[in-house]
Amino acid sequence: MLLQNNTIVVRRPRVITLLTDFGTQDAYVGIMKGVIAGINPSATVIDICHSTPPQDTFSGAYLLSTSYKYFPEKTIHVAVVDPGVGSRRDIVCVETKDYFFLVPDNGILSFIVQEERPESIIRVTNSKYFLPSLSYTFHGRDVFAPVAAHLSLGIKTQQLGIRINQLEQLDVPKPVLKIAGRVEGQIIYIDRFGNLITNVTKEYLVKGVGGQKPEVGSKKQDAFKKTSKEKILSQLCTMETTIGKKKILGLSKTYTDVQTGEPLALIGSAGFLEVSINQGNAQRYFKVDKGSKIIIENVR
Amino acid sequence: MLLQNNTIVVRRPRVITLLTDFGTQDAYVGIMKGVIAGINPSATVIDICHSTPPQDTFSGAYLLSTSYKYFPEKTIHVAVVDPGVGSRRDIVCVETKDYFFLVPDNGILSFIVQEERPESIIRVTNSKYFLPSLSYTFHGRDVFAPVAAHLSLGIKTQQLGIRINQLEQLDVPKPVLKIAGRVEGQIIYIDRFGNLITNVTKEYLVKGVGGQKPEVGSKKQDAFKKTSKEKILSQLCTMETTIGKKKILGLSKTYTDVQTGEPLALIGSAGFLEVSINQGNAQRYFKVDKGSKIIIENVR
Amino acid sequence: MLLQNNTIVVRRPRVITLLTDFGTQDAYVGIMKGVIAGINPSATVIDICHSTPPQDTFSGAYLLSTSYKYFPEKTIHVAVVDPGVGSRRDIVCVETKDYFFLVPDNGILSFIVQEERPESIIRVTNSKYFLPSLSYTFHGRDVFAPVAAHLSLGIKTQQLGIRINQLEQLDVPKPVLKIAGRVEGQIIYIDRFGNLITNVTKEYLVKGVGGQKPEVGSKKQDAFKKTSKEKILSQLCTMETTIGKKKILGLSKTYTDVQTGEPLALIGSAGFLEVSINQGNAQRYFKVDKGSKIIIENVR
Repeated sequence: MLLQNNTIVVRRPRVITLLTDFGTQDAYVGIMKGVIAGINPSATVIDICHSTPPQDTFSGAYLLSTSYKYFPEKTIHVAVVDPGVGSRRDIVCVETKDYFFLVPDNGILSFIVQEERPESIIRVTNSKYFLPSLSYTFHGRDVFAPVAAHLSLGIKTQQLGIRINQLEQLDVPKPVLKIAGRVEGQIIYIDRFGNLITNVTKEYLVKGVGGQKPEVGSKKQDAFKKTSKEKILSQLCTMETTIGKKKILGLSKTYTDVQTGEPLALIGSAGFLEVSINQGNAQRYFKVDKGSKIIIENVR
Repeated sequence: MLLQNNTIVVRRPRVITLLTDFGTQDAYVGIMKGVIAGINPSATVIDICHSTPPQDTFSGAYLLSTSYKYFPEKTIHVAVVDPGVGSRRDIVCVETKDYFFLVPDNGILSFIVQEERPESIIRVTNSKYFLPSLSYTFHGRDVFAPVAAHLSLGIKTQQLGIRINQLEQLDVPKPVLKIAGRVEGQIIYIDRFGNLITNVTKEYLVKGVGGQKPEVGSKKQDAFKKTSKEKILSQLCTMETTIGKKKILGLSKTYTDVQTGEPLALIGSAGFLEVSINQGNAQRYFKVDKGSKIIIENVR
Repeated sequence: MLLQNNTIVVRRPRVITLLTDFGTQDAYVGIMKGVIAGINPSATVIDICHSTPPQDTFSGAYLLSTSYKYFPEKTIHVAVVDPGVGSRRDIVCVETKDYFFLVPDNGILSFIVQEERPESIIRVTNSKYFLPSLSYTFHGRDVFAPVAAHLSLGIKTQQLGIRINQLEQLDVPKPVLKIAGRVEGQIIYIDRFGNLITNVTKEYLVKGVGGQKPEVGSKKQDAFKKTSKEKILSQLCTMETTIGKKKILGLSKTYTDVQTGEPLALIGSAGFLEVSINQGNAQRYFKVDKGSKIIIENVR
């Protein structure tokens, strides 16, 4: 809150999000929040997720990509899935039109850079914004938390270190169009409900299973308007999804389109093709895991 | 914060609570909080619980009923255990004297309506308060979160849609008084500690095991005064609780009334008869589950 | 926010932290936060951890000791691992130079009192600051939450009850220096990653394995400066850690100092000797548990 010309100006506080693989059984996440509260007591800190499997940068990258754009502009997204902590890997602050990302440079932004252009990438080196005493194994506490808190107070990213040009990339598996009307994808994430989330976007599905060469990386939020969705569903009612030795015909809108306990395929809330069981667990039903293949064909 | 007649008026912010079956291993809950922060950056969001077993509306109903009244007046309680998401089930906003409840109309308020009279029930249909692009499978993000945020900013519930008169009800099992002095109840919830929480309220127990016909649904917070509690305990020292083939004599006040590892019956913090093990786990000890029978008799 | 002499004074809000064994599968923690929000809607509440194993006061004590000093001054640390709830155990409010601790008097401050001198210890008895209706089994809701909220509003600790002189102590195992150059410690905590945290502090290690009689309880935050750390590492490159029948030579700085899947010993972020596996789980690798012995020798 500032006083300017006798007017009270309440600055919209910046949100800080946290995504880690620290779990919640220890005190690591709480400690990070303590450090933030000490630097900016007004910061709003929101947990995205702390149960990323230990050192699983890929899952962290996926989860962050499904979440970041639902936060207010200028949110500072902090993601610490960091198997290289204490080694020579960099910590980077990436600024896009709407957001800041403070992450180890290990590919955790690999999904996001398909959608958002980095306006600047800073290698974070200015220890003025770190805790005074730096451990080798808990940079979440000693670097990420204090730097995020300072960013939430409004410092410029340039103050954090020097500009670099490139980010590390993970190998994000792309769906493959083997022959017209036949798409091969794979399971990239499985959620709490056992829903099998694939790397096949709605756009890829429409074009691929319709027989055209699809563009990669054109997932847009507004492509999800109701009218277009209805059209897609009617186009894809003759598609068949093969997972293991089982087949699912058609594309459902929602879980309850099939009987309780029955499998279905639908476009999930993050825009990817998803295989589910109505009120059941598709991972247990199909006995598959991350990386398992999935084939979608037009059987018209 | 408003300026009125040169006076600063700080409006007490409304609390939003979240109860879901989304778990914390994915990003679903964080995304809901991001949406809320985008609409009302000053909202205080408090998690009640996200580990309700998937699609277990009954457990969600129980947990919400034990929690809601410990929150400040005008709190907006959002409960998303919603196996019917995307189907024709309604989303409703129920206003009582002190609270708002924003829930799928699937019976998740079944315990609460035994204690609180709805002053209005609105079927939420006004998409002006939803996210612009609506998915079929994640209404927590697209409907519940933005509507709750708008409610926390002070919109009237009537703006959300049209008034209806009835809510769906779950089948909440009632304790049964078979013969005077003998009550049959069942386990309705088991908590982290393995405590077995039954559907037998303290009031039912006093009257039922004392031989009078008890009223149903008269659980009142102030009935729990210290003096009355002491009286109850002396009245019920000759009661015997049967669970499986095991029996527990008397009613304890607290866990440490028996030796470590020993079973006991007591009135739990939510006002229900509860079977526990001092520093142990009653679910493992008795090998029972939700729905298991429990019999309480006066053996005087 | 106060108006004083036409100036707006924004008081830095006091943080309340919560550490419990309540887990997150039930509503217990959410209920505590509801009670706090009802008394002080501006309180910042931060979870340290709720997954302390049920009734495991020792783990609670360890976790609190690694966290408390990363929070702002005047933070109110509330720790409810309370197997004696409802019995005659006391609830105490301990004030140190920088912090308040509101805890059951069961030894949960045993680690902290090795580092912080209590300026006052108050037995909390003034029911004016409790919820009006007091249960026997959920003092987190009925006592700890409301008292913490009142403390965050600025009441003095003396208003809570009467001064006492002593705190209960847990038996905190100390490392043992059997012969010069040979230290025997034990595993006191195992975190989510399977890191084995021992009771051997960096200071004890330096002096013990170097052959001098080490002081106990001299862990100081500023002892962790970079220069001194480099020195320690070179001094300890000839140390050998024995755990079960396996041996680890030397002291690493960070996980990536060894190959993926290889074991290492390092000084962890809380200042204790820790045994880890780079990108693996040391608990599963060594098949050990809390309480297991560990021997560190100088094999120069």
